[in-house]
Amino acid sequence: MSRIVYVNGDYLPEEDAKISIFDRSFLMADGVYEVTSVLGGKLIDFDGHKARLERSLSELDMDKPEAFDDLLDIHRELVARNDIDEGMIYLQVSRGSAGDRDFVFPDPEVTKPTLVLFTQSKPGLADSAVAKQGIKVISIDDIRWGRRDIKTTQLLYPSMGKMMAKKAGKDDAWMVEDGKVTEGTSNNAYIVTGNKIITRELSTDILHGITRAAVLRFAREAQMEIEERSFTIDEAKEADEAFITSASTFVMPVVEIDDTPIGTGEVGKVAPRLREIYLEESRKAAI
Amino acid sequence: MSRIVYVNGDYLPEEDAKISIFDRSFLMADGVYEVTSVLGGKLIDFDGHKARLERSLSELDMDKPEAFDDLLDIHRELVARNDIDEGMIYLQVSRGSAGDRDFVFPDPEVTKPTLVLFTQSKPGLADSAVAKQGIKVISIDDIRWGRRDIKTTQLLYPSMGKMMAKKAGKDDAWMVEDGKVTEGTSNNAYIVTGNKIITRELSTDILHGITRAAVLRFAREAQMEIEERSFTIDEAKEADEAFITSASTFVMPVVEIDDTPIGTGEVGKVAPRLREIYLEESRKAAI
Repeated sequence: MSRIVYVNGDYLPEEDAKISIFDRSFLMADGVYEVTSVLGGKLIDFDGHKARLERSLSELDMDKPEAFDDLLDIHRELVARNDIDEGMIYLQVSRGSAGDRDFVFPDPEVTKPTLVLFTQSKPGLADSAVAKQGIKVISIDDIRWGRRDIKTTQLLYPSMGKMMAKKAGKDDAWMVEDGKVTEGTSNNAYIVTGNKIITRELSTDILHGITRAAVLRFAREAQMEIEERSFTIDEAKEADEAFITSASTFVMPVVEIDDTPIGTGEVGKVAPRLREIYLEESRKAAI
Repeated sequence: MSRIVYVNGDYLPEEDAKISIFDRSFLMADGVYEVTSVLGGKLIDFDGHKARLERSLSELDMDKPEAFDDLLDIHRELVARNDIDEGMIYLQVSRGSAGDRDFVFPDPEVTKPTLVLFTQSKPGLADSAVAKQGIKVISIDDIRWGRRDIKTTQLLYPSMGKMMAKKAGKDDAWMVEDGKVTEGTSNNAYIVTGNKIITRELSTDILHGITRAAVLRFAREAQMEIEERSFTIDEAKEADEAFITSASTFVMPVVEIDDTPIGTGEVGKVAPRLREIYLEESRKAAI
């Protein structure tokens, strides 16, 4: 059975889901996106993703798509039509197609944003075998543009970073700028030293992770100490634990950085506990 | 009459020219492009653009599209079908659509690049009224990614820069990094001081302009002195002249930077002369 996707008001078989070659996301990466996880057929942190989408659009002077207020219904309809138990829903808003190419933004009265959503079914997303083993990362230079707080589709370098990791036989890459870790290719980065969870403070340098915010809130509620500051790869190598968070990996232990085992080289205690709390609380709050 | 465009082997009316929502240029800006000018129905600097396209693809480990060796024919066919006398041909290669979204590059044996070309008719491109008046620019921070030598579709910031210029009532923006001008939003930047043409040296910081290379060659042949080094906005404000080059503007005088007139504030002598030489030589060599 073909996946049913959403394109500008229509629910279509995926092979029929097309957009104009003049769409500005295609021609000039003029688009923003969100990825929302689904557990037990329900949406995780939906409100957070919707709020961040609104912020991304606003930062780029891009209009909200006409269906903005129906996004919850559209997400639910896609979950139902594609029978998603565990997985993700990808959403993208592009500034649309003005029927030609121009660096100047099109008149928003005439050219409306393009809205695309599709599902990715991932059975076993929560009860992940990988989360029990942890992942291995390499470090690479962060050469992305300066507004990583806006969730744009300018993902070429993160994609290249994932390929660098793959070529090195590892799972992901942590990006480093001015000697400090910014984040992973599609996730926020953390280390644990003693009782303390250390993760880079929010700024234009990193994505303001929806999962990050929830995990830090749960960690504080569980009386864990949080320090929001940047750290080096050397400090990470000396840490007791390391992990990442994202909408699709939740909390994922990192057991090796640049061939150096972190702590014992096995999954520690803090990351799995945070993962458990996050999954439990998120399932309760899922809509 | 509807414009005829090229998409993966087909010549189509522009309204039927569509690509999959899973195309990697749409989802993650995983694509490169070229713009070739047309004068008198013939292609300007075609070989240079084709060579740079090949380099961009190679730098990104992207396969050449199947029709790579037919690109000249495709360009000519589009010129003929759309009756282009003066204008541009836009070409984009995307890593293609693997039918889903993944940061990992798809298997190139299975997923073939997407090739899209379309024309833009611009009567009066060579005999431009704007070139006689010159353009006014503002300076903005350069916050783009670090590999501007690869001509990727990550053009959101240049597009935002063009909007910043427009909002300020000006024509374009020069980007500044570490105190030095890198380039314009879609062109290389130059100043003229005394007998000397100064433009930033080639590196990963700027696009290796095809028009830039030709203009510098013609300038040297005309016994003008060239200094390839970076310069500040303050130095530009003190210069006798300033100008930009690109495939679609050729050589275009800049008469004002950040509200400061350059030289007399009128179009000088060097830029128009270079424009004249460039147009004359390019027409001769056009194919």
